[in-house]
Amino acid sequence: MRVLGVDPGLTRCGVGVSRACRAAPARSWPTTWLTDPADDLPLRLLHLDRSLTDLVAEHRPDAVAVERVFSQHNVRTVMGTAQASGVAVLAGARAGLPVTTYTPSEVKAAVTGSGQADKAQMTAMVTRLLRLPEPPKPADAADALALAICHVWRGGTRSKLAEAAQRARRGGTR
Amino acid sequence: MRVLGVDPGLTRCGVGVSRACRAAPARSWPTTWLTDPADDLPLRLLHLDRSLTDLVAEHRPDAVAVERVFSQHNVRTVMGTAQASGVAVLAGARAGLPVTTYTPSEVKAAVTGSGQADKAQMTAMVTRLLRLPEPPKPADAADALALAICHVWRGGTRSKLAEAAQRARRGGTR
Repeated sequence: MRVLGVDPGLTRCGVGVSRACRAAPARSWPTTWLTDPADDLPLRLLHLDRSLTDLVAEHRPDAVAVERVFSQHNVRTVMGTAQASGVAVLAGARAGLPVTTYTPSEVKAAVTGSGQADKAQMTAMVTRLLRLPEPPKPADAADALALAICHVWRGGTRSKLAEAAQRARRGGTR
Repeated sequence: MRVLGVDPGLTRCGVGVSRACRAAPARSWPTTWLTDPADDLPLRLLHLDRSLTDLVAEHRPDAVAVERVFSQHNVRTVMGTAQASGVAVLAGARAGLPVTTYTPSEVKAAVTGSGQADKAQMTAMVTRLLRLPEPPKPADAADALALAICHVWRGGTRSKLAEAAQRARRGGTR
């Protein structure tokens, strides 16, 4: 099962495609897209939409997981984040894919077992669960992969990822 | 010049296409789209995107004007509104149209001369400026038409609309 995770943002949008199934080792393609704050809003949303559409065409994920946006202290930022998340959800829906949103706590709980996990703990677990040679950078891309893991986990394939985690804890590569 | 105005909302999205030029009387096509709160977010955004895309194809506006979203008391509502506005801005950009956002105060000031105008005053002026046989209903559609008027006004054709307003005040139909 391939899942596209999106940590939405107008200036920084983290995305990651993660493949997790029993037959093949987990693979992942993390990245972060940046848009120029000097560009106007339509151009930035268009850039995000096209990048997501291209990524979906290239990796053909089975599902999309997007972080649910909440109001934060910086009202100006959160509006852009919400708009970017709307575009991300739409890109998945337009491709006919199931799109699910998850709160940050749900993602943390799925990946580390604790809804209060810090960034270092999250990155460590993402690296371990996906058997990455090194921690994914930047942090937005790690968050996107965590969303993908969360979706696989909650999508009923929990046992398979648990196996992967167990193997990783034992230090094995397969 | 045809302008598509969008008063974005997830549950209620007001849209209106207004044509305003010297050669032809202003015409307008106001409407409000509703999405079912029982449907999930991807389906609602997809419905909005398709409706906007169809409307653009049908009316071929020259520009799109979208209300700028601010944080409100109801955080849950404002997130949906921001996501809907992102989809509206994107729909215009994807069609290659210039998209401009305006604050509610800018729209009120453009249509009534006062940034603090109430809804009744706004509806009265929209009806007058666009020479509508009766006030546009529902209110979301009137707001969308006000956005379109604001764009024409601020787009440099202020004098033409001023003439239209003057004619309306004199009670003439042409």
